[in-house]
Amino acid sequence: MRLNYKVIINVLGLLLLLNGAFMLLCIPFTFMENGGDFKDILLAGGITIFSGSALFLSTKNIKNKDLKKKEGYMIVTAGWLIMSAFGTLPYILSGSIPNYTDAFFETLSGFSTTGATILTDIEAVPKGILFWRSLTQWIGGMGIIVLTVAILPILGIGGMQLFVAEAPGISPDKLSPRIKETAKRLWLIYLGLTATEMILLWIGGMTFYDALNHALTTMATGGFSTKNASIAHFTSPFIQYVIVIFMFLAGTNFTMTYFGLHGNFKKVFRNEEFRFYLGFSALFSLIIGFTIYFDSTEPFEQSLREGVFQVVSIITTTGYVTADYTNYDAFITVMIFIMLFFGASAGSTAGGVKLVRHIILIKNSILELKRQIHPSAVIPVRFNGRAVSRDIVFNILAFIMIYISIFAISSVVMATFGVDFMTSVGSVATCLGNVGPGVGSVGPVDNFAHIPMAGKWLLSFLMLLGRLELFTVLILFTPYFWRIY
Amino acid sequence: MRLNYKVIINVLGLLLLLNGAFMLLCIPFTFMENGGDFKDILLAGGITIFSGSALFLSTKNIKNKDLKKKEGYMIVTAGWLIMSAFGTLPYILSGSIPNYTDAFFETLSGFSTTGATILTDIEAVPKGILFWRSLTQWIGGMGIIVLTVAILPILGIGGMQLFVAEAPGISPDKLSPRIKETAKRLWLIYLGLTATEMILLWIGGMTFYDALNHALTTMATGGFSTKNASIAHFTSPFIQYVIVIFMFLAGTNFTMTYFGLHGNFKKVFRNEEFRFYLGFSALFSLIIGFTIYFDSTEPFEQSLREGVFQVVSIITTTGYVTADYTNYDAFITVMIFIMLFFGASAGSTAGGVKLVRHIILIKNSILELKRQIHPSAVIPVRFNGRAVSRDIVFNILAFIMIYISIFAISSVVMATFGVDFMTSVGSVATCLGNVGPGVGSVGPVDNFAHIPMAGKWLLSFLMLLGRLELFTVLILFTPYFWRIY
Repeated sequence: MRLNYKVIINVLGLLLLLNGAFMLLCIPFTFMENGGDFKDILLAGGITIFSGSALFLSTKNIKNKDLKKKEGYMIVTAGWLIMSAFGTLPYILSGSIPNYTDAFFETLSGFSTTGATILTDIEAVPKGILFWRSLTQWIGGMGIIVLTVAILPILGIGGMQLFVAEAPGISPDKLSPRIKETAKRLWLIYLGLTATEMILLWIGGMTFYDALNHALTTMATGGFSTKNASIAHFTSPFIQYVIVIFMFLAGTNFTMTYFGLHGNFKKVFRNEEFRFYLGFSALFSLIIGFTIYFDSTEPFEQSLREGVFQVVSIITTTGYVTADYTNYDAFITVMIFIMLFFGASAGSTAGGVKLVRHIILIKNSILELKRQIHPSAVIPVRFNGRAVSRDIVFNILAFIMIYISIFAISSVVMATFGVDFMTSVGSVATCLGNVGPGVGSVGPVDNFAHIPMAGKWLLSFLMLLGRLELFTVLILFTPYFWRIY
Repeated sequence: MRLNYKVIINVLGLLLLLNGAFMLLCIPFTFMENGGDFKDILLAGGITIFSGSALFLSTKNIKNKDLKKKEGYMIVTAGWLIMSAFGTLPYILSGSIPNYTDAFFETLSGFSTTGATILTDIEAVPKGILFWRSLTQWIGGMGIIVLTVAILPILGIGGMQLFVAEAPGISPDKLSPRIKETAKRLWLIYLGLTATEMILLWIGGMTFYDALNHALTTMATGGFSTKNASIAHFTSPFIQYVIVIFMFLAGTNFTMTYFGLHGNFKKVFRNEEFRFYLGFSALFSLIIGFTIYFDSTEPFEQSLREGVFQVVSIITTTGYVTADYTNYDAFITVMIFIMLFFGASAGSTAGGVKLVRHIILIKNSILELKRQIHPSAVIPVRFNGRAVSRDIVFNILAFIMIYISIFAISSVVMATFGVDFMTSVGSVATCLGNVGPGVGSVGPVDNFAHIPMAGKWLLSFLMLLGRLELFTVLILFTPYFWRIY
């Protein structure tokens, strides 16, 4: 069967139309200053809408509108790429980021909700453009929700079936009409939480503009800030705690949030991934908080706040910072580096490996020792009280192994571009995990501007890979995908 | 069933007897200088033989001499530990290494064929003691051969069944009498290669003593040298090439060497692991060799020799050095760091993950993408032309995941002892992989003397874990092992 290119182009056209419409949403903010970026954004939106319409209309009358699995893979990857390709326009036309490589890196870092930036002076960027930057992350987060709910389970990407088993109204077998319902419900939660956070941040003393931007990038677990110092700019403990709470919510399986909002806390606390997520975040926050407290002269509350902020920010793959964690005790740098590989819950906007996979991995590792003693017994991994099929466990192990192999190979390639050891492993880990800041010269108070051009393209590719759960992208590089039966 | 402690003690006693006998072999070398270490070694050997006899004789008359799987696990771990505990005596009694932690680290680094050293001035150590140091590695290598041929396949440690499928006269199900035959054959190869290398090194210009020591530690893929500068001390290209060839042979599956010695080269070159091993070594040697050539003013032959030496030394987990690889282009450091996770062939004396596991991992990862496209098809991994059972693939993936988890956790723990990022990850990776030198402050021209005491104990544990293929040791820490049915 050949790929149905026309239907792919049709969907991509639709995505571009949406993308252009979102760009136009930035226009009001251009008038906050002298409106210098008004024309640039109008033009960018116009070009994008025009291109989208051309693609969409040229394929409007196709007869076969069937979307098969293969078209699904193609649309996901091509969709993220085409959104990013056109998403660079506001940066380029306004001259905020004149170089295409940089602009593409920044845009994909947005749509992939990574939050790595090449901007050395964020506050110098016009307000309309800066809003577009935050918006790309929020759009990316919306995209991830559809992806997780509607697409990945059907494609059978490792571990996502486990999430689906819990989600209301989703059958892993086919795209039932109820999936649309579920996606809408989760989008509503996403929208509602964003609005709530915005109001709280506004009350807390941020300007309306800053509150809106930070709410957008928190809920997407993106981490773009409108300030050069990220959240360290806002010294109010209230603001920092609000952001911690909403980062944590953004990293929570949205289905659990749905149950929570309906008062079904029993279901939430019975969910193994949520318990693990909560426990892990608390444990690491305490370890780092106490270490800061004993190593410094800071008051206890401040140390603990610094600890919990950095931990939740990294685990949820948001990437905001209120302190330079590479300045703490050396073991904290190592710990945070390893946390770049965690990721929060599946079914949230968080990137990275995801905790559910780690849970299956840990359980299976321990059980493998049991299997060693009882080689003939069938010993399944259990998750949320149910036995997990061997196929899924297998798929998850393969996922993690591919993840680590990509990390290793990319680190070497990165180093061949003349980047030092810690920066190589740090930048690769943070981009693949969609976190944002890394270790080395891409730490929490640095940026990616100095990375060589080839490195920026590599990191862009890694952001895409990580965001789309590896398989979705990698499969396009196999002969199996392109073989016609 | 309770553990049969008596039979365990009996075997451990026998091991200690052997250990003491080996110590006495060092006596002749004490007379090379003023014989100052003669009495120390005699006393160490005496204590060890006496203790071994006590254990052995006290359990000589037991009726039930059955060795079951569980006793097997216990003997392997306890055996390596008790050998190391008594193996410290020559160092301690002679005062060469007065501190017990250091002495234990050095001895276990010997028996585990790691080659990490805490000695800051190797050449100041008396010749008899230094010979004991080399001998521990050679004994460790012998132990590994028995382990691989006779014990691991029965315990079902991941991937070892694949090696066994190729070995002559071994059935993975039970310890057949032919296994004894196979072990003897492989020991003969080990002994023969050691003798051959010694003669070649002697001809090449080393003293008899240096040639013997280096032959012992090459064939064990250990890497202890009698010189502070390791092999860089011997500038003769002939010597360096001889060592490269014998390191490569030591990292080759001994069964393949057996076939090779019988002229059956077809079988050797058909073996996938061997082809991968050869190809990988050649490729990486060329990459590093050419990089050195273009970055320096060295003649071409010297650059290539440096490249091949460092690569083969790391891949085979030997750990000799002729140059400081951390001084090369940054990407070489990253590449060598990642090579610490390779390991050479199963069925050799090399430590680490082993290439066969990486091959299965790579093949399975690619096939997992194929399975994604064809979810209902059964797509097995093939190795050496045969389909590998899903259980074995599963076990191998679990092995690698546990390996990486141990690496990650240990790196954090190491850093809490106040060790910097690169030294933490470097020391953990090199000890777990039984290589020797790492990156950071435990690089090729450094040593482990400055590592804090707790760190030395952690690294010692990792050397044991890595050498005994993880599962053998870890299983002792599970409730499943201790449960009585």
